[in-house]
Amino acid sequence: MAGNKNRQFLLKARPTGRIQPSDFELVESAVPTAGPNQAVARVLYLSLDPTNRIWMTDVEQYMPPVALGEVMRGAGIAKIVESNNPGYAVGDLVTGLVGWQDYAVSDGTGLAAWTPLPKDLQVPPTMMLGALGITGITAYFGLLDIGKPQAGETVVVSAAAGATGSVVGQIAKIKGCRVVGIAGSRAKCDWIVNELGFDAAVNYKEANWKDQLAKACPNGIDIDFENVGGEIMETVLSRMNLNGRVVLCGMISGYNSGEPMRGPYDTILMKRLRVQGFIVIDFMDRFAEAALQLAGWMLEGKIKHRETIVDGLEKAPTAINQLFDGENIGKLIIKVADA
Amino acid sequence: MAGNKNRQFLLKARPTGRIQPSDFELVESAVPTAGPNQAVARVLYLSLDPTNRIWMTDVEQYMPPVALGEVMRGAGIAKIVESNNPGYAVGDLVTGLVGWQDYAVSDGTGLAAWTPLPKDLQVPPTMMLGALGITGITAYFGLLDIGKPQAGETVVVSAAAGATGSVVGQIAKIKGCRVVGIAGSRAKCDWIVNELGFDAAVNYKEANWKDQLAKACPNGIDIDFENVGGEIMETVLSRMNLNGRVVLCGMISGYNSGEPMRGPYDTILMKRLRVQGFIVIDFMDRFAEAALQLAGWMLEGKIKHRETIVDGLEKAPTAINQLFDGENIGKLIIKVADA
Repeated sequence: MAGNKNRQFLLKARPTGRIQPSDFELVESAVPTAGPNQAVARVLYLSLDPTNRIWMTDVEQYMPPVALGEVMRGAGIAKIVESNNPGYAVGDLVTGLVGWQDYAVSDGTGLAAWTPLPKDLQVPPTMMLGALGITGITAYFGLLDIGKPQAGETVVVSAAAGATGSVVGQIAKIKGCRVVGIAGSRAKCDWIVNELGFDAAVNYKEANWKDQLAKACPNGIDIDFENVGGEIMETVLSRMNLNGRVVLCGMISGYNSGEPMRGPYDTILMKRLRVQGFIVIDFMDRFAEAALQLAGWMLEGKIKHRETIVDGLEKAPTAINQLFDGENIGKLIIKVADA
Repeated sequence: MAGNKNRQFLLKARPTGRIQPSDFELVESAVPTAGPNQAVARVLYLSLDPTNRIWMTDVEQYMPPVALGEVMRGAGIAKIVESNNPGYAVGDLVTGLVGWQDYAVSDGTGLAAWTPLPKDLQVPPTMMLGALGITGITAYFGLLDIGKPQAGETVVVSAAAGATGSVVGQIAKIKGCRVVGIAGSRAKCDWIVNELGFDAAVNYKEANWKDQLAKACPNGIDIDFENVGGEIMETVLSRMNLNGRVVLCGMISGYNSGEPMRGPYDTILMKRLRVQGFIVIDFMDRFAEAALQLAGWMLEGKIKHRETIVDGLEKAPTAINQLFDGENIGKLIIKVADA
């Protein structure tokens, strides 16, 4: 068994620029035991997400930042190994904010509230971190509730081969839209067009990518599902149609800079755009609706899923940079222990 | 009679920076006569609006720019003096895009479509350019349909003593909001608080205005009705509450610069703001609803109106700078001829 000890990554320093291993301290302590009303869980998988980078900073954000000296916050899948809490039984798989550690403790409340997975789960549990989990649900509400796509409209999604973007594009296809993805490699572009059914893909690392985008959007752009920000976002905005919608889900290109992330406001005014920031936790009371619909589409073969799994908790502080380097395809996951 | 001749201001050059009289050519020609299906109208009043400055440029915008050599576009009130068009009778007062000239010609279609005013109009016709006209209607739809204010919320409006802003604040008060106006003089601030009933006013020309704004908004800001842009907008945005709305109606502080107008996007993301550009012409099919409701409120004494009237068509190219210098209070109008 991997865990006579509990390894924990504590946030030691707020990263400036790129995340460095030295921003964390790896400490070992005894495996925790469950106090009154607590459960202890073995962490199996960790979800690595762009939002982790935001939590490491102390800018104004949608949750409290992780405090220095605190276990790094992260979503994941864990198995209950001890429980004094009626909500969790030993052997249950749970998903929630389990943190960058081998073992996590929860009393079932607040940020530490975990959700048990169905006992008869028919899919690999990692899918509950991706297409059927928080990134899939983000795609679902962001596109449908914020973007409000109509059949025939053109939807552009950036970071299109990522965990969220890949699902956004597939839902937009289900809704009858023309879908164009922006991604950072030929392999990613091939995957989203050939496997996922996007109408076109643009590799922003090719010199003529702006021309490619123009050609891929002959009727302009009605919805920008924005995950990247910066020059990519501004190029998309310059091609928006009147009354277009910008689903502002993320701006990963700016997270490492520590600089304010800015963009055009005159375009919003002149084109009567709606630019709307969006965090999936605002839709928490409708998560079940999204998960059921996504599972249904997956069974029908309309939504496909892909993962990049990195083995070993100790890799978390380096593997997370794959998100910023554009290395992973699909959902980036750390495997901490065997299920 | 002032018009044996027809004076017309043609746009000669696209202004760079401040509008100069030399950007226009004043030409005189014979008073036009009505061709088949045409009407000729004597222009009585011209509405001077920030959007005029946009029409003078060739940036991407919500209407075609005014072409060089063309009569400067402008809304106004005119009286029909000759008509071969069944929609207009001699003696009718009409409102529409009559242009910077003594006499205008229309066939009743396109941008030249004029709307006859009611024959039993109970208010001065200039009110149909302001609180009961395009700026009042802009305030109505922008605040109610885009901003969607709830009782108890805090609404901040910039250019608060202007034609649009002054009506925005009064409607927000009717809807039970806390209303804070930002304006550029003590006289304007006194007017909007003492006469119009705003809860507070901030003079952005005083050194401590940001502190004044903070104090005036103890519960943060739920709606920013934005007319100014730039530093004023950014200061308001920094105090927005989660899920706040920014009604992006105008950004007058940037129109003279010729530079792209930019602002924070990270704030939109982190605070889940909705920032929505808005042009009143998108609501044209509901103008009657707005005008009736505004007239009703005016009769009840809940909406008050103020005008700054400058005498003489020849003053148009200089008087328009009052908008950018913050000199006018309420609606800025050129009187061209007696009714």
